[in-house]
Amino acid sequence: MAQKPKTRVVVVGGGFGGLTAARRIAGLPVQVTVIDRKNHHTFQPLLYQVATAGLSPGEIAAPIRWILRAYPNVEVLLEEVRDFNLEQQQVITNEGVLPYDYLIVASGATHAYFGHQDWEPFAPGLKTIEDALEIRRRVLLAFELAERQATTAGEQPVLNFAVVGGGPTGVELAGTLAEISRHVLAHEFRSIEPKKTRVLLLEGGPRVLPAYTEGLSRKAQQQLEGLGVEVRTSQAVTRIEPGVVWTGDTRIPAPVILWAAGVAASPLGRRLGVPVDRAGRVSVQRDLSIAGHPEVFVIGDLAALQDQNGKWLPGVAPVAIQQGEWVAKTIARELEHQPRRDFRYNDKGSLATIGRAAGVAQIGRWQLSGYFAWLAWLFIHIFFLIGFRNRIIVMIQWAWSYLTYERGARLITGSNELPGWTKPAEHPVEPALVGKQRVS
Amino acid sequence: MAQKPKTRVVVVGGGFGGLTAARRIAGLPVQVTVIDRKNHHTFQPLLYQVATAGLSPGEIAAPIRWILRAYPNVEVLLEEVRDFNLEQQQVITNEGVLPYDYLIVASGATHAYFGHQDWEPFAPGLKTIEDALEIRRRVLLAFELAERQATTAGEQPVLNFAVVGGGPTGVELAGTLAEISRHVLAHEFRSIEPKKTRVLLLEGGPRVLPAYTEGLSRKAQQQLEGLGVEVRTSQAVTRIEPGVVWTGDTRIPAPVILWAAGVAASPLGRRLGVPVDRAGRVSVQRDLSIAGHPEVFVIGDLAALQDQNGKWLPGVAPVAIQQGEWVAKTIARELEHQPRRDFRYNDKGSLATIGRAAGVAQIGRWQLSGYFAWLAWLFIHIFFLIGFRNRIIVMIQWAWSYLTYERGARLITGSNELPGWTKPAEHPVEPALVGKQRVS
Repeated sequence: MAQKPKTRVVVVGGGFGGLTAARRIAGLPVQVTVIDRKNHHTFQPLLYQVATAGLSPGEIAAPIRWILRAYPNVEVLLEEVRDFNLEQQQVITNEGVLPYDYLIVASGATHAYFGHQDWEPFAPGLKTIEDALEIRRRVLLAFELAERQATTAGEQPVLNFAVVGGGPTGVELAGTLAEISRHVLAHEFRSIEPKKTRVLLLEGGPRVLPAYTEGLSRKAQQQLEGLGVEVRTSQAVTRIEPGVVWTGDTRIPAPVILWAAGVAASPLGRRLGVPVDRAGRVSVQRDLSIAGHPEVFVIGDLAALQDQNGKWLPGVAPVAIQQGEWVAKTIARELEHQPRRDFRYNDKGSLATIGRAAGVAQIGRWQLSGYFAWLAWLFIHIFFLIGFRNRIIVMIQWAWSYLTYERGARLITGSNELPGWTKPAEHPVEPALVGKQRVS
Repeated sequence: MAQKPKTRVVVVGGGFGGLTAARRIAGLPVQVTVIDRKNHHTFQPLLYQVATAGLSPGEIAAPIRWILRAYPNVEVLLEEVRDFNLEQQQVITNEGVLPYDYLIVASGATHAYFGHQDWEPFAPGLKTIEDALEIRRRVLLAFELAERQATTAGEQPVLNFAVVGGGPTGVELAGTLAEISRHVLAHEFRSIEPKKTRVLLLEGGPRVLPAYTEGLSRKAQQQLEGLGVEVRTSQAVTRIEPGVVWTGDTRIPAPVILWAAGVAASPLGRRLGVPVDRAGRVSVQRDLSIAGHPEVFVIGDLAALQDQNGKWLPGVAPVAIQQGEWVAKTIARELEHQPRRDFRYNDKGSLATIGRAAGVAQIGRWQLSGYFAWLAWLFIHIFFLIGFRNRIIVMIQWAWSYLTYERGARLITGSNELPGWTKPAEHPVEPALVGKQRVS
């Protein structure tokens, strides 16, 4: 009897959903291919720590190939998926085509500017390691340029940091930026006082962390303000220029503007021939497959699905992980000729960190804020970080940072130019004079 | 009585020489300005570890501002020095001019192609964090592209790594690349066998590590060969194209070519109006000042000076550090109206690492090679690394890497393109066929 060819499963994306699915499916008699355009899985919950110089990229990211090294039936390819041919069951990449029996699309989401893509160069978002390094570069560079200018002009230039969007990422960034300016850099400059910088958190809606209860939103705002952040709610951003953000008629000069106001699903969702919502998320059925194609699953941030109570599932790691597990189970059942079952999300709660020893948690009916919420956040995130070595090192970095107020990865790499940084045009600089003032 | 204005010392460059000088001078009643075009000091002896994914940039580099934070009379400016006005005692930067009473130029060296600058895009060198990240990207990407191609074409493409130059940097890079291909990546690919890759070390002279004794050079070559490196001495590179290096008539295809064949002093040396040698190093007098300008010192890799026996001092950290200390002492003596003395280099020996548990050491008449030389190298370098936190973390990374053969920073960031990587033109790829072959 000829051997039956192995079932071929292609997984698009090495995030939480894709990796979980690949690992679980690896135990089945199938051939798995994981495709990602990056060679590494990024632990996104800690990305803001890279953006704020607390951790190095290598501490929160690991090669997908390394994560899956123990599964001989899993191959990993560094390619970019361009399209799908659902009829012929093929994935089309920049390199060629790959046939599949089952397809799992888990290509996630990216930050989105909702029709204002031209704002991106002036207000970078935070979804990849490269994004984080660019934000780190801008934040650190702003202080350096201010010091340089203050040495020359004799007075501290405006040094505002504007964070657009009061969701978890915006809150994390704003809280940590306040900590940096008030503590980390406090004694390292000679001509500027870093603590005179302002960190503004601009949120279009009435409160920060809108996914949490009103009580926790209030607590979060209080903690942010305690750290030194100016929280401005109901302030929709209407325009962004180099170094300037507008909320209606209010012009806010800010050498560093960070975008944490919205995400859109991966454009691959639109290539699946089924309806997508406004954010580009793909409508999936209760078994996580798409209409008309039971062999195609969409999971994680790319999937749009309501829970049993009609609430849309949020774009968070636990949803992606549970969906990855569910699809693996579904394929296992189908290989055993058993019927499919509906996915149910088991919500274990939400946690957000705000900054040094501050955070909020919502676990069932429990609500927690402040130091203990922060501690819970910290241990859960270190626990889920991939790789034992990373866990140890991140723990040391964290303890060190907590005790000494220092951050270990304060490197500016790449260009020393900051879009929107303008020398004071009112004071044309005459070299000889500059020299004199510099030693005054 | 009016207060006498403070003596102004400008230090150009935050490497070993500049930092040592700034720290020692800070104890005097002077005003110190350190200028660098990077915000960080880079611990260059460990740069090859970043290039080979063993360490993260943040672990071997620290902000200059942070290193000098404890000295209130030291300011740090992120600027680029363009020129000097020695008559008016001014440093000219991209931002303006800075007057000085004493000037210490310690702007170091960079890798040089000796008239073949056009080779740089095809054979990057290793002097900065950015260089190291580019080399890391190319090395890791080459394996990914090979795997991708092998999946499609069914056979492993040529995957040679050519390291040009058999000095300490070339030896370190070649040894570690061999370790990566033979151990680190051995079990993570499905279509290629990483250990089939070849690492070639091309040296124009008759032996590797020419600054060491002949016996140690031989030992170094044996250790390299033991690690799997093909050492080719007396093989001068005559041409480099994308993905190809030529030694005479021999054409060596190599998707990754690394340049470790030569350094040239910073171009700032030529702005000082005194003779420079072929490598651009500035002739200094025995007190480390330049002829005609006792207030201008040149130290470190930028300085050309013979020791008591007429031997040129090498471009290594101990020379730069001792010269930095010496200039600080000279300024201190002069503030006390004492005469200058001549600099004498105290040679404590040389150490080079070759790869996993391999190295050579030359300490006075002592010669050491193998495991103990490597261990000595390791502890001395961790000891001199800046920052206690970095020392702890690098030690952990090292122990981990030694025990598990894993490397913690295997991230490809930036582009997925490799100059010189060519798909097999002999086999034009027909998409449908590719798909079939891929699942064969």
